[in-house]
Amino acid sequence: MTFTQRHLLGIEPLHPAEITALLDRADHYAEAQRRGDRHGDALAGLTQVNMFFEASTRTQASFEIAGKRLGADVMNMAMQASSLKKGETLIDTALTLNAMRPDLLVVRHPHSGAVNLLAEKVNCAVLNAGDGRHEHPTQALLDALTIRQAKGRLHRLTVAICGDIAHSRVARSNLILLGKMENRVRLVGPPTLMPAQVGELGVEVTDDMAEGLRDADVVMMLRLQRERMDGAFIPSEREYYHRFGLDAEKLRAAKPDAIVMHPGPMNRGVEIDGTLADDINRSVIQKQVEMGVAVRMAAMDLLARNLRERVNGV
Amino acid sequence: MTFTQRHLLGIEPLHPAEITALLDRADHYAEAQRRGDRHGDALAGLTQVNMFFEASTRTQASFEIAGKRLGADVMNMAMQASSLKKGETLIDTALTLNAMRPDLLVVRHPHSGAVNLLAEKVNCAVLNAGDGRHEHPTQALLDALTIRQAKGRLHRLTVAICGDIAHSRVARSNLILLGKMENRVRLVGPPTLMPAQVGELGVEVTDDMAEGLRDADVVMMLRLQRERMDGAFIPSEREYYHRFGLDAEKLRAAKPDAIVMHPGPMNRGVEIDGTLADDINRSVIQKQVEMGVAVRMAAMDLLARNLRERVNGV
Amino acid sequence: MTFTQRHLLGIEPLHPAEITALLDRADHYAEAQRRGDRHGDALAGLTQVNMFFEASTRTQASFEIAGKRLGADVMNMAMQASSLKKGETLIDTALTLNAMRPDLLVVRHPHSGAVNLLAEKVNCAVLNAGDGRHEHPTQALLDALTIRQAKGRLHRLTVAICGDIAHSRVARSNLILLGKMENRVRLVGPPTLMPAQVGELGVEVTDDMAEGLRDADVVMMLRLQRERMDGAFIPSEREYYHRFGLDAEKLRAAKPDAIVMHPGPMNRGVEIDGTLADDINRSVIQKQVEMGVAVRMAAMDLLARNLRERVNGV
Repeated sequence: MTFTQRHLLGIEPLHPAEITALLDRADHYAEAQRRGDRHGDALAGLTQVNMFFEASTRTQASFEIAGKRLGADVMNMAMQASSLKKGETLIDTALTLNAMRPDLLVVRHPHSGAVNLLAEKVNCAVLNAGDGRHEHPTQALLDALTIRQAKGRLHRLTVAICGDIAHSRVARSNLILLGKMENRVRLVGPPTLMPAQVGELGVEVTDDMAEGLRDADVVMMLRLQRERMDGAFIPSEREYYHRFGLDAEKLRAAKPDAIVMHPGPMNRGVEIDGTLADDINRSVIQKQVEMGVAVRMAAMDLLARNLRERVNGV
Repeated sequence: MTFTQRHLLGIEPLHPAEITALLDRADHYAEAQRRGDRHGDALAGLTQVNMFFEASTRTQASFEIAGKRLGADVMNMAMQASSLKKGETLIDTALTLNAMRPDLLVVRHPHSGAVNLLAEKVNCAVLNAGDGRHEHPTQALLDALTIRQAKGRLHRLTVAICGDIAHSRVARSNLILLGKMENRVRLVGPPTLMPAQVGELGVEVTDDMAEGLRDADVVMMLRLQRERMDGAFIPSEREYYHRFGLDAEKLRAAKPDAIVMHPGPMNRGVEIDGTLADDINRSVIQKQVEMGVAVRMAAMDLLARNLRERVNGV
Repeated sequence: MTFTQRHLLGIEPLHPAEITALLDRADHYAEAQRRGDRHGDALAGLTQVNMFFEASTRTQASFEIAGKRLGADVMNMAMQASSLKKGETLIDTALTLNAMRPDLLVVRHPHSGAVNLLAEKVNCAVLNAGDGRHEHPTQALLDALTIRQAKGRLHRLTVAICGDIAHSRVARSNLILLGKMENRVRLVGPPTLMPAQVGELGVEVTDDMAEGLRDADVVMMLRLQRERMDGAFIPSEREYYHRFGLDAEKLRAAKPDAIVMHPGPMNRGVEIDGTLADDINRSVIQKQVEMGVAVRMAAMDLLARNLRERVNGV
């Protein structure tokens, strides 16, 4: 077994061989789904708890479907309506839940690092479903699987990540993953939406779409994270779309077979032209969602195996 | 197989033979439930998603129990707290969910026609759990099953539908179903709560309960849909009960063995006298709820069969 | 079968032999959980409905995990967002749900007695998950199991219950259970947080921690139920902690091997010192949570057996 992690907290701790092992396993599940052979028992008898301290219908649904299709008992805990209200700390919540002996804990939290903190306190495997501006590893993995399927490889590609880089854990996890797999990454967006230390990332940065997309194999658009912007300068949507919104015209700078990606939910006419988003010859946006379920099945399958080996003292 | 539909979007598209086939299947499940033989595997390995854009504890619970009793993996998506907030369109939500490959999608939506629109965008079977003032097919089917069990037939009956007809998708679906099965339907209620084109429906209309209930086999009361009334004249509850609320006295106009129905939740003392509602010799209100689970089991069973045949290219 | 109850509405109706039978069964499940042999089928094919009219993440999660681990189909009904809003009465809600033929109904309600009322109207087994200031039987049972495991017995122990007795159904259920099993109970807290007829309970009462904890085997802290206090005099948190908050210093009055309990969620630094709460040599707080799942598995298992026997007319 190449994948030796106890948790999936981010892309940062993963070895390239682990990324490949996880994607290979996800390919297996994607193929099974396609054949209509959807149900397995890799997680039968295990308890998966989804703890979302931040609402996210699509990510939670993807994890829930993935778990149920592998036979897990899945429980959703809506943490807004929870005992946190009664003054309980995050750590107490973690300890309490841990005492109920879950096997897999899927956590989304508005604060960077909260999921890592939680993982230190529990015996089960923890999957980060997005924490603050830190990481969102399953999103980067599903993006990687989508790219690998479309391009036939996941190395030596030119990938343009465009838009609101500063507020995006998706961008961060993708940047790390694509770097580990030896791709060329360009960040494109207004300087106000670039992270403060962008110069230290060792990637090309530009605020010009034509320059950023030149000969790109992959154009990855990001959502404008208005809910994460506090006081930062935000361009008007119209102005933003004019300069940074992806349409057929701007896409011409990329390679003729470049694919278009978006993690969703999309703001049509802000980050991306609606017609282009729906163009199945260029856009792999629905494919990303489909690969999301496969990647989460694979991640939970591999973590559950490692958990069993650890418990059985193999 | 007589039931050849891909979706269950309304009663309108159903052939009378399809209604009969669905009710026969529901009878089978109702009988199994009664025997305590509750669990089956007709939906084993399938993913059922309940997408309620409008809260409805009882309808959602009925669909959830129906699906779980047939072995489906059931997922509830509370769409109020969803990414719709983030500006995602209904169509994008549908496409996203579709990419996760559900098999059965149960949808309630406040806008008439929204469920049909959604059904055009997905590969799975869609069940309408109520859309605006349009249709609520499983309610009409469970009412039909209840009537058929109580009266021994579902044709040549006189059915009085009473109360707030204008705002009621329940009335609309029942009207269509009872008409298709060749029953005589009377609408009873204040003119302000009648639909605008009531004259074109080809049914008897009256604002007099004694006249409307005369020799009726079935008296079907409706809920005052205050939440759907925007600006319309609403009588006081006391006045409404006096003229249109069903009590033992008014019921005397109907046949001696007439049954009393209500889709719930009831406003006791507004639409119906509480004692009458609880009188198991006249009221079949609890029976309606029981038949609801059986009808939803039958509908999902039949749609899943058609889905499999379509996928397998039979 | 020693446990002959139809419902689990409180500790009050239980015979000591029934308490012992339930704890023995819970021991069996606790041991199975510890071994990692978590999944059973005692509730396979049964429908468990969790109806929480008052939010409680931890209790609901505990019941949900317990049910799923025994193979039940578990459905959560969030009753705040329910048809109660539409003016439906508690009784109508009960009758409606009953018509869907659930087997196990877990209910939490803000009003004392509401769960008993509901139990009279349904055919299934009802478990009280806390009703107003009345009872919270599974909490008292999990506390009893934790004590029995730590002390090797559940009789002739001195138990100090400390804090907000007046607003606590936990205190009430524990007081009854510990009394039935012939233990010595002391209530410790400010007179303003003692119930009105405390003199009639036949237990020692004091507002002095040193006196209350003297030679105690078990020190059971309670949560300050601020949400239940309407107009009562509430001491400042700092003052409260100084006089009634448990720390290592105050604990010295108890026996050297006394255990420390808290039903959670804790207010650290108000009812209890955080360091003491985390001291695994004294605190059994996480153990309580763990025993919660085992006790709920046992309770639902035994009630389901009685339900089957009643239905089969044995």
